[in-house]
Amino acid sequence: MNLRDQLDSPLFTHFIANYTHPTGPDLLARTEAFFQWQESRRQTGLWPYSRSLEGAPTAECGVRSEGGVARHGVNFGSQDYLSLSTHPAVVEAAHRAIRDYGVHSGGSGMFGGNTTPGLQLEQALGEHLEMPYVALFATGWGAGFGAIAGLVRPEDHVVLDALSHASLQQGATAATQKVSRVPHLSNRAMRRKLQELRANDTANGILVVTEGLFSMDSDIPRIEELQNLCHEFGATLLVDVAHDLGALGPRGTGSLGAQGLLGKVDLVVGSFSKTFSSNGGFVATRSPAVRQFVRVMGGPHIFSNAILPVQAAVALESLRIVRSEEGEVLRTKAMENILALRAAFAEGGVKCLGEPSNVVPVPVGDPKVARVAGKLVFERGVFPNMVEYPAVRIRESRFRMQVMSSHSVEQMKLGAEVVLRAVAEAREFVEAPQQSPLRAARVESGKRVEV
Amino acid sequence: MNLRDQLDSPLFTHFIANYTHPTGPDLLARTEAFFQWQESRRQTGLWPYSRSLEGAPTAECGVRSEGGVARHGVNFGSQDYLSLSTHPAVVEAAHRAIRDYGVHSGGSGMFGGNTTPGLQLEQALGEHLEMPYVALFATGWGAGFGAIAGLVRPEDHVVLDALSHASLQQGATAATQKVSRVPHLSNRAMRRKLQELRANDTANGILVVTEGLFSMDSDIPRIEELQNLCHEFGATLLVDVAHDLGALGPRGTGSLGAQGLLGKVDLVVGSFSKTFSSNGGFVATRSPAVRQFVRVMGGPHIFSNAILPVQAAVALESLRIVRSEEGEVLRTKAMENILALRAAFAEGGVKCLGEPSNVVPVPVGDPKVARVAGKLVFERGVFPNMVEYPAVRIRESRFRMQVMSSHSVEQMKLGAEVVLRAVAEAREFVEAPQQSPLRAARVESGKRVEV
Repeated sequence: MNLRDQLDSPLFTHFIANYTHPTGPDLLARTEAFFQWQESRRQTGLWPYSRSLEGAPTAECGVRSEGGVARHGVNFGSQDYLSLSTHPAVVEAAHRAIRDYGVHSGGSGMFGGNTTPGLQLEQALGEHLEMPYVALFATGWGAGFGAIAGLVRPEDHVVLDALSHASLQQGATAATQKVSRVPHLSNRAMRRKLQELRANDTANGILVVTEGLFSMDSDIPRIEELQNLCHEFGATLLVDVAHDLGALGPRGTGSLGAQGLLGKVDLVVGSFSKTFSSNGGFVATRSPAVRQFVRVMGGPHIFSNAILPVQAAVALESLRIVRSEEGEVLRTKAMENILALRAAFAEGGVKCLGEPSNVVPVPVGDPKVARVAGKLVFERGVFPNMVEYPAVRIRESRFRMQVMSSHSVEQMKLGAEVVLRAVAEAREFVEAPQQSPLRAARVESGKRVEV
Repeated sequence: MNLRDQLDSPLFTHFIANYTHPTGPDLLARTEAFFQWQESRRQTGLWPYSRSLEGAPTAECGVRSEGGVARHGVNFGSQDYLSLSTHPAVVEAAHRAIRDYGVHSGGSGMFGGNTTPGLQLEQALGEHLEMPYVALFATGWGAGFGAIAGLVRPEDHVVLDALSHASLQQGATAATQKVSRVPHLSNRAMRRKLQELRANDTANGILVVTEGLFSMDSDIPRIEELQNLCHEFGATLLVDVAHDLGALGPRGTGSLGAQGLLGKVDLVVGSFSKTFSSNGGFVATRSPAVRQFVRVMGGPHIFSNAILPVQAAVALESLRIVRSEEGEVLRTKAMENILALRAAFAEGGVKCLGEPSNVVPVPVGDPKVARVAGKLVFERGVFPNMVEYPAVRIRESRFRMQVMSSHSVEQMKLGAEVVLRAVAEAREFVEAPQQSPLRAARVESGKRVEV
């Protein structure tokens, strides 16, 4: 199949968003158009999603595409920011939990599914966040969705930073039709929105939703200002710290700790699936009543089986390391890598987005270029995540490179070099296809091209 | 605190449903009324929820109430129907997965979080169900919610059996406002509803939702008839097999297998958190397009980290046992227990609800009686789940006793005896409090009372 001839076809011009609203009475058959489009991307190596790792999420690893093509190389796609998922103490904690508690919680947290490691995790996390009441969920998604779906009634309002995570967006729309989004990080727009809502409704609640670190842009709100705004207008602030907690801030306290706000915001939501090496999530609060309310009314806590003892034990041991001297060392090591990666891109003329964090967003722009470059980097053994619309705006496609403490500075340099070259080649291929027949042939071949 | 004087107070007359819709502008403070009510139940031992196990979910175990009271006794509250969560081969599979793949998937299934055990589980489960395309989710809740939220657009209709699981109900209301519920198990009402919907709308989809085994009533729909109705009216059938798959039916194929329907219904949704010893869930289909659509469009698949390798490995090994001769033996052993438990209740004059399955619903009726009885059985070392409104109708409170293959027939007899006696004492206490001051005193003491 000749990619050049298809630059104006749906293979390049369509996005997932083109297929989210299929019509017709047959719920099953109408999924076919999406599948055909996705399949054409898979077959040409332009579908960078749904890959699998062939081992643990280590700095170097084997990766298999959804189409079955295997490569070995440098992993920039895992969220294991302090590399705790293979840390001997964490692994030992997992084995121990299985020995002591079996492999299963056996029931909903409401119905006898809580476990000793889970109770210990609630306690330790409460101390870490200075928010003593913690409700656990089996996934971070469930925590974000459940916190909002639990607290917000149809009469209430939710105001989200426009780039808030899908779980928060989905929780908001499930809870109320009164959902607003304000431009990303704009506290000024937030003030206007709260003013407007309170001018018309003083009887109902307003939940303001933001994140400690936005994972597509690696930027951070001024949280104290937001919390003050919420106090001024009788609104409640929820901060999702999925990406920053553990990985950033003093003792791994994330953006809240870095901004001196431990124990000072209304609600904290987070996930263990980044730094804390396990699925699972939590809602943390200063109020025992809020904790209970969210557990019982939210959905995913009460109607899911409780977090497994092994999940809780892993997160607990990860938290212990996060708070220790060793955690500080791991964060320092990760930050060296992060800065080295950003510097390598800067040397290549590309300014990475946002603040230095374990998420390094590398702007590409043109989605066609990003798709071709995504194919090239995979073939060359460098595995970042390629992000395109609707996760980001159409002309803001990017690579999201996730940096771990177990990476080396050399891998950062290699990663930047491969990505920069792939983007340059892809740009040439997309923008002037007639002039680069050899390059085009290489892109089409699907074979590994050495850097 | 004197319980007798409070029989007409919120301690006994209120339900969670009284507190689901708090009003006022302060989202946090307005949770207090619920908490105070719940706290009064906790302090009087009348809050049977949110207990924790002190070890694996074995037939006999230590249980701690949310108020911190510990008891040791017979566990009727875990969903580990074939007791696989402590099976040596399953435990070994968990240790092996941790050794080979670390403790963490490291990312969303969309972004490189898939693992080899996950891919193997998809394949094996597809064969077991004769539905070759399987999408995994990190929780069963996410699978139920995600399947519906993924496939159904706001223009479409969802028709649920009225007793469908909360994850399915929440998925439906998140997807569309066109949600109907038909009386439990009434295929006649379903026909009328489908006729009515199709008379007015031939352009959009209709999703019909039922379960393979209803976990509060232990009853089973006539699924082929429902599927035929769906074919007749151009609707799509989704069957949630969370409770029956693995535990019932030939080779553990659940109600679908028992009714000769493997590979013959439109969509199958399920959970690993019962027989398969792990959190996690799945959607199974005959269409690769439907699988992909649900993964990408549903929310909890793409925006959660993928099921952990240890979760997938545990479910996979559990599935191997489920399909083996040993699985047959375990199911036979569990069914002996189930029948013994139901017989023991029948001898005591109580007819358990529904069909023989690992869920044995013991009707109590009066919610006040159920609360007092729930306190007594806990104190006496028997731990079923007490179920009250809104999970069931107000006057249909019940104990849900979950039976495992590792239970003994003696434990069944003991369980029935303790529950029967507790219900009788509670009934006497509630209905004629003045005439039983000594009993009342015993109920209030909070101390263990020997049977």
